[in-house]
Amino acid sequence: MIDLTLLGKKAKRASYELAKANGKDKNDALAKIAEGLKKDIPDILQANKKDVEKAKANNISDALLDRLILSEQRINQVSDSLLELISLADPTGEVLEIKERPNGLRVGKQRVPIGVIGIIYESRPNVTADAAGLCIKSGNAVILRGGSDAINSNIAIVKSIQNSLENSKLPMDCVQIIEDTSRDTVKEFMRMNQYVDVLIPRGGAGLIKSTMENATVPVIETGTGNCHVYVDSNADLSMALDIIVNAKTSRPGVCNAAETLLVAQSEANEFLPRMKQALISKNVQLRCCEKSFELLKGDPLVTPSTEEDWGTEFLDYILAVKVVEGVDKAIEHINRYGTKHSEAIVTESYTRANQFLKEVDAAAVYVNASTRFTDGGEFGFGAEIGISTQKLHARGPMGLTELTTIKYIIYGDGQIR
Amino acid sequence: MIDLTLLGKKAKRASYELAKANGKDKNDALAKIAEGLKKDIPDILQANKKDVEKAKANNISDALLDRLILSEQRINQVSDSLLELISLADPTGEVLEIKERPNGLRVGKQRVPIGVIGIIYESRPNVTADAAGLCIKSGNAVILRGGSDAINSNIAIVKSIQNSLENSKLPMDCVQIIEDTSRDTVKEFMRMNQYVDVLIPRGGAGLIKSTMENATVPVIETGTGNCHVYVDSNADLSMALDIIVNAKTSRPGVCNAAETLLVAQSEANEFLPRMKQALISKNVQLRCCEKSFELLKGDPLVTPSTEEDWGTEFLDYILAVKVVEGVDKAIEHINRYGTKHSEAIVTESYTRANQFLKEVDAAAVYVNASTRFTDGGEFGFGAEIGISTQKLHARGPMGLTELTTIKYIIYGDGQIR
Repeated sequence: MIDLTLLGKKAKRASYELAKANGKDKNDALAKIAEGLKKDIPDILQANKKDVEKAKANNISDALLDRLILSEQRINQVSDSLLELISLADPTGEVLEIKERPNGLRVGKQRVPIGVIGIIYESRPNVTADAAGLCIKSGNAVILRGGSDAINSNIAIVKSIQNSLENSKLPMDCVQIIEDTSRDTVKEFMRMNQYVDVLIPRGGAGLIKSTMENATVPVIETGTGNCHVYVDSNADLSMALDIIVNAKTSRPGVCNAAETLLVAQSEANEFLPRMKQALISKNVQLRCCEKSFELLKGDPLVTPSTEEDWGTEFLDYILAVKVVEGVDKAIEHINRYGTKHSEAIVTESYTRANQFLKEVDAAAVYVNASTRFTDGGEFGFGAEIGISTQKLHARGPMGLTELTTIKYIIYGDGQIR
Repeated sequence: MIDLTLLGKKAKRASYELAKANGKDKNDALAKIAEGLKKDIPDILQANKKDVEKAKANNISDALLDRLILSEQRINQVSDSLLELISLADPTGEVLEIKERPNGLRVGKQRVPIGVIGIIYESRPNVTADAAGLCIKSGNAVILRGGSDAINSNIAIVKSIQNSLENSKLPMDCVQIIEDTSRDTVKEFMRMNQYVDVLIPRGGAGLIKSTMENATVPVIETGTGNCHVYVDSNADLSMALDIIVNAKTSRPGVCNAAETLLVAQSEANEFLPRMKQALISKNVQLRCCEKSFELLKGDPLVTPSTEEDWGTEFLDYILAVKVVEGVDKAIEHINRYGTKHSEAIVTESYTRANQFLKEVDAAAVYVNASTRFTDGGEFGFGAEIGISTQKLHARGPMGLTELTTIKYIIYGDGQIR
């Protein structure tokens, strides 16, 4: 069994060193890490080969295998994205405000690193370097706990990063990995409140649920997206068609893809057949409510929906379809079944656009645009550690700023109370 | 057993209504609640009498009894503080920024209520109305779970609030109470992720620990304060004396009181005897490190410290005292033993003041002022729901703004990705 307490202590100590580092020191370290990863490509690929062989022997799915496999090109991409972080502004240190109180105390609010961040993830070894880069840039130490599938790759990547850190002004321990991937160890990790300030799980619904249930360290829930597109009465139907096709089919396996189409009754007769034609040609299964099934039936891809479909994140070429009376019912449906990720209305109505923006309870609410834009890059953050679907601390795409907290700094001249 | 799911559903529904309410509706409801509480004083006092009699029969401590007892004056104060909320700005609705992306999407960030807030507290029935008022003003529904000691008082207060809400434009269910105070019920409450967005425990260390350990709903950790005052070399010693006397003795039972005094070696000989004289005259026990014990011994209130003293929140007329080499060691001690609440340095050094502000890991870091100022009212927030000692979402005193979250609102004209 690994000594997690030692790991935690080292991370905490490193986080205090890192909080003192200036932006140049952090950028220099990122440049060294990026360079080191390129230099270590042969070692990393060799470690990755071990993981891939084991995975093949265990008959893992092609999709999982695709996530696991590294190539020279992929490592170069990871390295390049570290270099991109250098050009982003350092979020820490900024004083957001200083207010003078009547007694002369000056109360300031300053952005500071969170401290130690724990990342729990599955089989994508590229997360290892991505997460390390984001944490370093934002002044945080990180403890990585990746899945057993990718453990050799992850260890090789962290070894490369630590070697580069050793030649930088930052402490080597600001990036550490838990080499023991057993369940007991990860459970212990989730309860290290003394050393870990926040846990960010990245992966499927099961991983996120298990983290929420077992952790005593504060968790940022990420990811699950049961997203809707609602086509309002008098919408621009060509625009609506483009949006639903894009939201459903441009990348069905990601969290900001649409899973349910809601259509105002007044538009159903005209819009649904056009939608059917467009989506069936892309091999999308349509799971239809009674009304829409009546309109669309006759194709093997068109089937009646079940209650379960409304609450399912398909992550596949499947779309649930429902005719609703109007915007009120659409909002009610979304707030009941949605996962509070990304929701869109297509409308020409000023009033209903505003109503939808106000009343839909989600991280990102769109008027006349595809849900697919919920992404740190698309929002202009330059980088992203995940998409929060909870309401505390961060909501929606999390960039560097969301990896910081604040601290009150108070300047006095002897005030007592 | 109470039907918590029904309670949760009602709260969630009420939260959606409340999110639509405008500032005037919320203020009108607060005024009605304040008026209603005054009108219902006889009923509330009668219910409180039951609680007090039961508590006396159970021989609870005088301190707890004092927290439990209501009087006409206390209820009037609670009512007045609800009226004070009316004059504060409504934190919700504000659009913090709108940025236009290269593709023409306008990405905005809007402040919105969190949704449903769960408050878990102990024997102070005044928390019932205080918390309800703060939640309503910030647009949130609240589910209250007070301790069994005060259950009759709490039920009477909530009944009064609900009666007032029935005559307002807000839904009655925006304030609800869990009448069953059993442990099983509170544990179920802590895992109602579908209906409760955040839990705020208010009370002693045991309550907070149990909430952190059992909850799957995100928790904001509040309260514990093992605060330090560090007297630096070449500090203004008269100022230092005023500050430590104030921080220790003005109200020893609160979380922002000082528990440990750290003194730079160079000042120990001059400062410690003055400190001893001032604090012993106020009956403060001094638990001293070896060096300070040598200097101060000879009084029954002066005893040697144990390792445990450094990590203890005494909440009493007890002060741990330690001589340190200088600011580096002081920061090291604070980051090791502190609870990340409030920490102060008394210094004339520009460099060491900045070092302390930067390197101490706490919600509020002071130069030349008493730790006692960490408080929503003192910081100018007008009201406070608690003091967060964690780093996610809110840190330090939590006012109305900290009871909100953000939502991205995105205006498009047909953008697809």
